[in-house]
Amino acid sequence: MIQRDAKGQVYLGKWELLVQAVIVISLLDFAFETLPDLSVAQQLIVRSIEVFTISVFTLEYLFRVAFSRQRSKYIFGFFGIIDLISILPFFLGFAIDLRSLRAFRMLRLFRILKLARYSRAIRRFHRAFVISREELVLFAVSASIMIYLAGVGIYYFEHKAQPEVFRSMFDGLWWAVATLTTVGFGDCYPITAGGRLFTFFILIIGLGIIAVPTGLVASALSKARLEEDKDENDNSPPE
Amino acid sequence: MIQRDAKGQVYLGKWELLVQAVIVISLLDFAFETLPDLSVAQQLIVRSIEVFTISVFTLEYLFRVAFSRQRSKYIFGFFGIIDLISILPFFLGFAIDLRSLRAFRMLRLFRILKLARYSRAIRRFHRAFVISREELVLFAVSASIMIYLAGVGIYYFEHKAQPEVFRSMFDGLWWAVATLTTVGFGDCYPITAGGRLFTFFILIIGLGIIAVPTGLVASALSKARLEEDKDENDNSPPE
Amino acid sequence: MIQRDAKGQVYLGKWELLVQAVIVISLLDFAFETLPDLSVAQQLIVRSIEVFTISVFTLEYLFRVAFSRQRSKYIFGFFGIIDLISILPFFLGFAIDLRSLRAFRMLRLFRILKLARYSRAIRRFHRAFVISREELVLFAVSASIMIYLAGVGIYYFEHKAQPEVFRSMFDGLWWAVATLTTVGFGDCYPITAGGRLFTFFILIIGLGIIAVPTGLVASALSKARLEEDKDENDNSPPE
Amino acid sequence: MIQRDAKGQVYLGKWELLVQAVIVISLLDFAFETLPDLSVAQQLIVRSIEVFTISVFTLEYLFRVAFSRQRSKYIFGFFGIIDLISILPFFLGFAIDLRSLRAFRMLRLFRILKLARYSRAIRRFHRAFVISREELVLFAVSASIMIYLAGVGIYYFEHKAQPEVFRSMFDGLWWAVATLTTVGFGDCYPITAGGRLFTFFILIIGLGIIAVPTGLVASALSKARLEEDKDENDNSPPE
Repeated sequence: MIQRDAKGQVYLGKWELLVQAVIVISLLDFAFETLPDLSVAQQLIVRSIEVFTISVFTLEYLFRVAFSRQRSKYIFGFFGIIDLISILPFFLGFAIDLRSLRAFRMLRLFRILKLARYSRAIRRFHRAFVISREELVLFAVSASIMIYLAGVGIYYFEHKAQPEVFRSMFDGLWWAVATLTTVGFGDCYPITAGGRLFTFFILIIGLGIIAVPTGLVASALSKARLEEDKDENDNSPPE
Repeated sequence: MIQRDAKGQVYLGKWELLVQAVIVISLLDFAFETLPDLSVAQQLIVRSIEVFTISVFTLEYLFRVAFSRQRSKYIFGFFGIIDLISILPFFLGFAIDLRSLRAFRMLRLFRILKLARYSRAIRRFHRAFVISREELVLFAVSASIMIYLAGVGIYYFEHKAQPEVFRSMFDGLWWAVATLTTVGFGDCYPITAGGRLFTFFILIIGLGIIAVPTGLVASALSKARLEEDKDENDNSPPE
Repeated sequence: MIQRDAKGQVYLGKWELLVQAVIVISLLDFAFETLPDLSVAQQLIVRSIEVFTISVFTLEYLFRVAFSRQRSKYIFGFFGIIDLISILPFFLGFAIDLRSLRAFRMLRLFRILKLARYSRAIRRFHRAFVISREELVLFAVSASIMIYLAGVGIYYFEHKAQPEVFRSMFDGLWWAVATLTTVGFGDCYPITAGGRLFTFFILIIGLGIIAVPTGLVASALSKARLEEDKDENDNSPPE
Repeated sequence: MIQRDAKGQVYLGKWELLVQAVIVISLLDFAFETLPDLSVAQQLIVRSIEVFTISVFTLEYLFRVAFSRQRSKYIFGFFGIIDLISILPFFLGFAIDLRSLRAFRMLRLFRILKLARYSRAIRRFHRAFVISREELVLFAVSASIMIYLAGVGIYYFEHKAQPEVFRSMFDGLWWAVATLTTVGFGDCYPITAGGRLFTFFILIIGLGIIAVPTGLVASALSKARLEEDKDENDNSPPE
């Protein structure tokens, strides 16, 4: 009755979708819990949903352990450990101390990674990253140098004019991150003519360096899809 | 005399362009109506234009109903219902109550969808979306996970330093949306060293995930054009 | 002695570069003129540079008129008219009134278009735009609809919460322009939960529509270069 | 015992990686030095790290000079000069004056360029830039014209309404840089209806011009990789 995938792990069929829905519910519940003005009734609801989702995950974990063909491979594998970590803090919270629970709670975020199990998404992205790995490293280095130079430059241009805004080079680096990614929060910006001219040149040069890798990944991703289609065609019987 | 398209629906020929112009006028009129300091004379003009555009749309609707070959197919089809919905609130407004009119008015927005009828735009976009459907779902999931993790992270880094700005995790999620799309409104931003370093890594990783799909759609769109050209060539007689 | 291009127009050889430099100087001079706190001496310098650049442009214009083979074709052609318009306001300024000069001065901006004459840039861009024309129209329509819907939506979500910020639908439309292009000035942003959720969905859908055409133009531009290379190869003698 | 590369220059093998790590440490140390509230103990640590990194760089420089086969080629080559410049300010600082040290210190930034020596990154980027050189020049010209026209336009629209924000055309140009790169700091933005409509059209046209070259460089980069793979295949013996 129990379905198993190629590696002998339990596959829950249509129930997998349900587990995904419960994961999303638990993540939203996690966010609602931080709302500052929750009434006692609302806190109870949030807490109940928490208990419900933990129950589902616990049942799922036990089920997977019980019916896996290669039990130890599951328990000590990537997803087995994530499955355990995402429910453990709840039980440890009762055992040790209720107040330290909150810190453990953060680990519950790992639950989100369980989403990875059910879709082909990560696998394909992984392939695309392998294809464009070298370019991405190259980009990371270039972008880091660019951000460093931009941060140092703006600090020297603006430090005297705005000592409170650009207090140290780290403020300059933060400005460089927010500017070269074109986010531009507006918490700090150059006001001197030199600083503005510097920003102009930094942006003209820097935007290319920051924006290029997205094009690389896009083309790598379409290449990965092409290879996938090819593999499927090779495996299918000839017409 | 009446032109009809392949499905036997009324095609107004050059009048279609005129109807489009009237749609744009009615949409602008809708915006002008919300201006706070309109004089009585101006309100009268806005109202008159409204009555004029509704008249055109009503005539057009009746005309289409009267001369459609497959009348029921038009009336209960996508565009027939949109055509009706875009004029109905005006008449219902008089019938029921003048003040509740404003809420119905919002439905008038559906008029904009009528633009879809007249151009090949939507069809081509539709094709491109079918081609890159799988990648777009994959992107939506990745982007959602990324935004969730970024929102949770920034909340934990900044909540204590700025309890008024990052009140709950939902403020963190809002910040994540504004930052990872590089909009950066500047209504909330990290001020702690940890939060800024976290933002740096989130942006370096996240920008790719957010920006990649645009490249995917662009290549899918050009592929759709290629297929279209091919179809046209196949249908045309050999030289 | 006088060089002429294929159409019999005067070509100044190395002097063309010099004229370009003078154009850039006159544009910078135009900007310096608007500085609020110029001393009398500085105003004199700005004015002198203005007179100098106008002299160069006048001489150039007379030279071109005098030595063009098809004189009327130059004078009433695109560049002839631009060349005239870029110097005329200066002389008219003296003839009519010194104070109305400032308004005429704006026409001097047309000088910048003279840059177009000297480079192949515009021609190539033109070719790329012809290739991707249909997609760009399609994008313009989609982006306009998107911006309109976003503007109307945010107005309804935020008008009650921030009547001073989102006064009319036009403020909503302005917000939509600044947000969907990811500029995000931060002069207006949603504060209600509904408005923020709406922004999230608008951004996820809208970014694609706004960002796609850049990919289209990029691929069209490389296609235009390919065609250019091919044309050059076809014209060159076989090896 | 000493490894040498194809040009007879010293190659430090696994030690190269260590030197790179020391470069990163010295750059971080440079940033920490600017923090305003450092205690005496902290200043001592920062200073010690500085002395340590300078020692490593000096030893490395002497080692390279001593064991280079073509000594003069190294000393007067690009990297030899950078290696010297990155350590010289430290020693000159003691010799001349301790306070003028800070200005010399800025030259220490050249150290970052030493990173270039160790990776193939710059070489590949260089190749991609050569491929798309013409398009990038074309982009730079178009973007500059666009920014100039946008800056002048917004100045005329907003100068009267906000004389304190858009004081001169240079403020307009700064706004144009921040807006067309979609950074949008929010230190200045249009408030008049004309200025906002102008911004809308400028953004629709301008975004393409600014964003296109990133796609160009991305495709050039993948083309460069292709050529590289081809070169490697040509050099390898046939199977």
